[in-house]
Amino acid sequence: MPAALIQHPFMSPSALNASNTQAMVHAMLTFELALADVQEALGAVPEGASQRMREHLEAHVFDTQAIAAGIAKGGNAAIPFVKQGRAALPDALKPYWHQGATSQDVVDSALMLLLKPRLKAIDTLLRRCRTAANTLMQAHAATPMVGRTLMQQALPITFGVKVAHWALGLEQGRRRLSPLAENGLPVQFGGAVGVHSGWDSLGLDFMDALAAKLELAPAVLPWHTDRQPIHALSTALDGVAGAAEKLALDVALLTQTEIGEVAEPAEEGMGESSSMPHKRNPVRCALIRGAARQIHGHTTVLLNTAAQPLERGLGEWHAEWAPLIDSTLLLEGALEQTAVVLEGLEVHPEAMQRNLAATGGGIMAEPVSRLLAPVLGQDTAKRISAEAAETARQSGRHYATVLAEHSEVKGHLSLAELERASDPASYLGSSEAQVKRAADWLMSV
Amino acid sequence: MPAALIQHPFMSPSALNASNTQAMVHAMLTFELALADVQEALGAVPEGASQRMREHLEAHVFDTQAIAAGIAKGGNAAIPFVKQGRAALPDALKPYWHQGATSQDVVDSALMLLLKPRLKAIDTLLRRCRTAANTLMQAHAATPMVGRTLMQQALPITFGVKVAHWALGLEQGRRRLSPLAENGLPVQFGGAVGVHSGWDSLGLDFMDALAAKLELAPAVLPWHTDRQPIHALSTALDGVAGAAEKLALDVALLTQTEIGEVAEPAEEGMGESSSMPHKRNPVRCALIRGAARQIHGHTTVLLNTAAQPLERGLGEWHAEWAPLIDSTLLLEGALEQTAVVLEGLEVHPEAMQRNLAATGGGIMAEPVSRLLAPVLGQDTAKRISAEAAETARQSGRHYATVLAEHSEVKGHLSLAELERASDPASYLGSSEAQVKRAADWLMSV
Amino acid sequence: MPAALIQHPFMSPSALNASNTQAMVHAMLTFELALADVQEALGAVPEGASQRMREHLEAHVFDTQAIAAGIAKGGNAAIPFVKQGRAALPDALKPYWHQGATSQDVVDSALMLLLKPRLKAIDTLLRRCRTAANTLMQAHAATPMVGRTLMQQALPITFGVKVAHWALGLEQGRRRLSPLAENGLPVQFGGAVGVHSGWDSLGLDFMDALAAKLELAPAVLPWHTDRQPIHALSTALDGVAGAAEKLALDVALLTQTEIGEVAEPAEEGMGESSSMPHKRNPVRCALIRGAARQIHGHTTVLLNTAAQPLERGLGEWHAEWAPLIDSTLLLEGALEQTAVVLEGLEVHPEAMQRNLAATGGGIMAEPVSRLLAPVLGQDTAKRISAEAAETARQSGRHYATVLAEHSEVKGHLSLAELERASDPASYLGSSEAQVKRAADWLMSV
Amino acid sequence: MPAALIQHPFMSPSALNASNTQAMVHAMLTFELALADVQEALGAVPEGASQRMREHLEAHVFDTQAIAAGIAKGGNAAIPFVKQGRAALPDALKPYWHQGATSQDVVDSALMLLLKPRLKAIDTLLRRCRTAANTLMQAHAATPMVGRTLMQQALPITFGVKVAHWALGLEQGRRRLSPLAENGLPVQFGGAVGVHSGWDSLGLDFMDALAAKLELAPAVLPWHTDRQPIHALSTALDGVAGAAEKLALDVALLTQTEIGEVAEPAEEGMGESSSMPHKRNPVRCALIRGAARQIHGHTTVLLNTAAQPLERGLGEWHAEWAPLIDSTLLLEGALEQTAVVLEGLEVHPEAMQRNLAATGGGIMAEPVSRLLAPVLGQDTAKRISAEAAETARQSGRHYATVLAEHSEVKGHLSLAELERASDPASYLGSSEAQVKRAADWLMSV
Repeated sequence: MPAALIQHPFMSPSALNASNTQAMVHAMLTFELALADVQEALGAVPEGASQRMREHLEAHVFDTQAIAAGIAKGGNAAIPFVKQGRAALPDALKPYWHQGATSQDVVDSALMLLLKPRLKAIDTLLRRCRTAANTLMQAHAATPMVGRTLMQQALPITFGVKVAHWALGLEQGRRRLSPLAENGLPVQFGGAVGVHSGWDSLGLDFMDALAAKLELAPAVLPWHTDRQPIHALSTALDGVAGAAEKLALDVALLTQTEIGEVAEPAEEGMGESSSMPHKRNPVRCALIRGAARQIHGHTTVLLNTAAQPLERGLGEWHAEWAPLIDSTLLLEGALEQTAVVLEGLEVHPEAMQRNLAATGGGIMAEPVSRLLAPVLGQDTAKRISAEAAETARQSGRHYATVLAEHSEVKGHLSLAELERASDPASYLGSSEAQVKRAADWLMSV
Repeated sequence: MPAALIQHPFMSPSALNASNTQAMVHAMLTFELALADVQEALGAVPEGASQRMREHLEAHVFDTQAIAAGIAKGGNAAIPFVKQGRAALPDALKPYWHQGATSQDVVDSALMLLLKPRLKAIDTLLRRCRTAANTLMQAHAATPMVGRTLMQQALPITFGVKVAHWALGLEQGRRRLSPLAENGLPVQFGGAVGVHSGWDSLGLDFMDALAAKLELAPAVLPWHTDRQPIHALSTALDGVAGAAEKLALDVALLTQTEIGEVAEPAEEGMGESSSMPHKRNPVRCALIRGAARQIHGHTTVLLNTAAQPLERGLGEWHAEWAPLIDSTLLLEGALEQTAVVLEGLEVHPEAMQRNLAATGGGIMAEPVSRLLAPVLGQDTAKRISAEAAETARQSGRHYATVLAEHSEVKGHLSLAELERASDPASYLGSSEAQVKRAADWLMSV
Repeated sequence: MPAALIQHPFMSPSALNASNTQAMVHAMLTFELALADVQEALGAVPEGASQRMREHLEAHVFDTQAIAAGIAKGGNAAIPFVKQGRAALPDALKPYWHQGATSQDVVDSALMLLLKPRLKAIDTLLRRCRTAANTLMQAHAATPMVGRTLMQQALPITFGVKVAHWALGLEQGRRRLSPLAENGLPVQFGGAVGVHSGWDSLGLDFMDALAAKLELAPAVLPWHTDRQPIHALSTALDGVAGAAEKLALDVALLTQTEIGEVAEPAEEGMGESSSMPHKRNPVRCALIRGAARQIHGHTTVLLNTAAQPLERGLGEWHAEWAPLIDSTLLLEGALEQTAVVLEGLEVHPEAMQRNLAATGGGIMAEPVSRLLAPVLGQDTAKRISAEAAETARQSGRHYATVLAEHSEVKGHLSLAELERASDPASYLGSSEAQVKRAADWLMSV
Repeated sequence: MPAALIQHPFMSPSALNASNTQAMVHAMLTFELALADVQEALGAVPEGASQRMREHLEAHVFDTQAIAAGIAKGGNAAIPFVKQGRAALPDALKPYWHQGATSQDVVDSALMLLLKPRLKAIDTLLRRCRTAANTLMQAHAATPMVGRTLMQQALPITFGVKVAHWALGLEQGRRRLSPLAENGLPVQFGGAVGVHSGWDSLGLDFMDALAAKLELAPAVLPWHTDRQPIHALSTALDGVAGAAEKLALDVALLTQTEIGEVAEPAEEGMGESSSMPHKRNPVRCALIRGAARQIHGHTTVLLNTAAQPLERGLGEWHAEWAPLIDSTLLLEGALEQTAVVLEGLEVHPEAMQRNLAATGGGIMAEPVSRLLAPVLGQDTAKRISAEAAETARQSGRHYATVLAEHSEVKGHLSLAELERASDPASYLGSSEAQVKRAADWLMSV
């Protein structure tokens, strides 16, 4: 697959590297050696055997191509890996290798081991985003801009409150995802049919000790076909993706040439076009949105594979691997972009002012209508304020002026009163209070 | 839509009824009246006004057809509803109706109000499932059956441990979903652009008081385009659906004519065919699986609408309503079926015994191989145990007998030893311990 | 379900009505009576029996509530419907009722019968859209506006060519979907296990005659678990939805207050807000986008249920019904909105001019760079044209003027040459030719 | 990504190789050189220039790592590729490189070039499947087996008719997908905003000539944000995936130990377990199903990105690449497995016989009921035939015997008559006729 050119651009290079084929083999080996360790500690492996196994295998160079090729036979990477490992051991140690385990134990646990540092990296990125968002929203707590509903100018808000909403989305996602780094990546160990065949209740002791040894979450029971952990994890990843995607959508909308209220941080060559010299594309937003869309697709796979038959999936399990790993790598990549955007976002308060004035004040029809209502009645007030907004928009004159000259208004309210009522800066509602409240909540954990 | 014939069969009739058009109108009214109450308490509405409003409107019969027809104009139900409500009020009260609110405040909060009893009903059903599963798994903690991986006979387990795995799936889903009944259904109140325009920080006080009044969760901030609450809710519903779907898949597989280990509870007319008198279809399983698949589709919508533009969605919000409500109703319906299945499942231990014996003992190749290994070496042991399994399967003779007569085995191990090693009942691993552990965990909350 | 308030607004009222519970019962009856007809014609029913059956049953009022209630037992609407029908017949006719049929034959065929007029209505709407788009694109074949990539101003296009692209999307969708009204809605008739048990090859004759009688497509074989027809149909519906969604996205973007190049057709009360008098929301776009998102979710269900086990699905089939019908109704609703938008779209060429000039000409950096290249070398030309675009944007001066004064340009090119090169109207490429080509293609069928 | 261990096993090694990073670079180069060729032929490039360009660049070793690294800046592979290409050319040729093109022209066309041989390979595999299925269904046109609905034994069919249904699913998928290899992979060429800026109607000539040169389908217009071609392609791929998935589901169900009617072709080491010597897992089915599930997820991405804004997507386009390529590679991999399964499937008619007899004949209740009806009345006949089926199932006696002894039947019908009526072999309906009809249809193209 031309993954390097069509998929990896959405991912973090270091994360990709930490999750490559070699890393997967290493994670499987880590599982098997830890298993021997805990079995030795619990008397199921002769003393010293696990250490000798470790010496043999940590020095051994696994043939990853042969493992990859062997997958077609058994359907997963553990089978050829276990074979190679066994072949590399002296006969005396062979019986203690992969003892009591099944291939799903190896693959599930190895994937959890690969995911653990990724969830930590994602948490770190989300904290970076939180800090950056906090700074940005405080700086702009009182910077007026127009709020837009259904993508139409509505009423004023501040830029700070918009950032606060981004921050809340990301932080809600973080608080849902991050605990899973601790308790959502369970060890898998159940043996052939998930009941530790041949080991009786000792099997559960192996499982618990293995969780502790590998620093994975303990499992209540083996979860070969109980995929709730995968479901909770993948949907939590998707939640964060949605929060980043919302931010990217907003930034892209506010960056439109005619709006120009914000811009992605400037960087040499960033956002360039292959043909148009003047272009500065919001490429980071495109990458975030592109990643998020793919994550939604991967998550959809995992929604539809949550129900797996009897004691082992027949394709449902196999279908989980790439979507799960890809989602995580895509999300980490998207958050690297998000953090850069939040840390370096260019904000143009003067463009916000310009856009607030774009309707000549017509966006203030609602407060003006509230001012007129006691004098003219609610319905008339609403009608006149709407008509005047339309007139102001079409004529390019200021809303307050248009209103002051309106035959039904004249004599009732002065231009000064109308100007005050239609001044966006006086109508920011709870914007500042929301920023304050968001800051308290964001930093409460 | 012929919903009554193609969609409602998957749903609970009582839940459908509690969530109908009338109920939605009532929920919107509840929101508006509570808003007037809290605004009065906070001095933003004259004393007594909210009570008078309540008297007018609780007696008022809203024209739901006109509301439905009016949706096309404004795009949501709140706009025509608010108009009808205002028209039904005396002029003096009109200004205090829907004061400071926007249509999304009304619709989002009303949906949360509709969902609250549904989440409680789902929790109750899940507790019913848990109790039934606990009873069932205890009763069969030691009932041997064959475990199947990739839908092939593998090694023995007990029926109890299988039920324990079902129970764990459902209970994990419950523990993820049920807190959301308390803290996952937030009030929505932000006004036109989410910053309580015209009310300054008092807006947040209204929002907090409204949450308390409506017994919805408090919101940190209005969440018009921060859809994390919807995402967390819908994916948690989907998680439970996956757990029920897994149970239904297992039951359906175990009910196959040739396997016959369990059957849905018998009930007059249930599972009948329009043409075949002998048929007794696992209809409850079909309904559960049919509901779950639809829930996954609805959840996919909500994954893809999590990112909404600026201060109000342009279609993304509108797309949420039906998937969210339908998911919930489908899940409740599926769980009603699940509870009945768990409470009345017919279990056939004799069929389990028959199936355990179907390979003449060949499924015990792994323990037999472990027995042979010290004598014959691991590789030879594995080869011989596999060959004999194949011979036993093809000849219909018992595995131990075939092995005992094998030239390489004869003289090394007695038939009695081989019979002991290939007795499924002696090889149930941690099955009973798992049931015990599952029971402790299930009942720990 | 409060469907009337949260789902039906996206649908066509007349289509909803034509597809209601009563209509589904009528479609099932149509199937059964046609079956008796063709069986009589082929000698499998006594002469006159089918006519007597028709007389009894066309007069009979089916109890739809009892049918709905009966679904829980057998899992589909056909079972209780067939029972009611049989009960309503004299004993002599009972044996010829539902003869050789299975419930899936009834339900699948009835759904096809319900869908047939819907596909025709969708085709009619798409032709209406095509005509409207053709008129609109011809009228604006030469109306310059700015093209925007990654939502940034890029280079000029015409509004006509944009409409041509919308029209092509919709028409490609139509050409994919519309043949399915003729050959994509196959009759279903296979009996209990799809092989016309008890009827030998006569079964296929019944099936073929039934297709002709019902004006459904002939089937090669019964397709109880071959769901390719459903897959092809639902994905074709989704394709059209995507084309309409693209148009709605563009219209919404171009309607933004700061851009204002188009607006949805004005209509009393349309697009109003519950609080803001000045608001005129692109509600039709919101409804189209909301419908499209839901259709994608329904389609996802049908992708995941295409594989059905053995001779009848166990939930997979049941999960198809609502998504299939809902998709169709949502699409028809979305296209009603799309047609209105295309027929009445307000176009503001002066706003397009204003926006073309928004960068002071900087969007013309690419042609200017091509003009400079022979004189200054390609790299220098690119650099200077980009720098000047930035200067023009920031200073508000005209791009040509900025360039003309540039030290490296001065003396090489005159202001007039630069003005010519940076005139958007001279740089519309193949826009007009594309409109012409699109018109030829659109009207070629 | 550990793709080699978790994703590539589902894919064809040769297809992976033909679609790697190098191949993508080569496809982009092919596009650019063909563009120069056609522009030279149409007078837009000096004579001989395209040949000299070709000489320079075909010898040039592109630095794929630098291209990959450069993607982060511009958001797609074309931008760094075009830069490298330009740098490798002498100054005199630089102006004719990438002339009039935009990065999306390069990437979209390159992806179509990569897909073309893949669609051909998929067609070849589907024809191989068709041939194998045809042979298999003819061989078993009259081999009786039990048909199963809702996974319960229903009535007899033949194995041939089951294979015919698989074949029809796959062939319908092929007939939908395969034309797209010819007319569904359009060239992309529109320049910066899709209107051939600076080239007027010549741009369309370039586009048409380019299609011919690259042997891609001609496009009516550039389709930068008209993604109907991608939608049609990806959903057609998904349709085939669904057909293969159905076959794999059936094979897996029929391979269950207790059923054993078919088995995947035996092959040394294939289907082995890491722990159980006796296991022979239907691994090919697992790989097919695993691939299909992932394809559904990728397709879901493409449903949700079909609507792209204005003249270029902002993430929607970027999100298409990996899902589109991955789907294709996964499908090719799945079909390689499917072909092997169909060509070498082990069929066990004796197991089919055994299973037909499993209910003691009770599955024949429907024809028996038809036999009894004239004598006992339809309702009594149905009741008695169902009761006897239950008795036969529970007692293990033969259905005909049980019936013959039934008090209400005795004297009316002889054991011989009842045995004849309950003989599965006499009740195969149109099975053979369906196989014949399927063969005609399959081979009609």
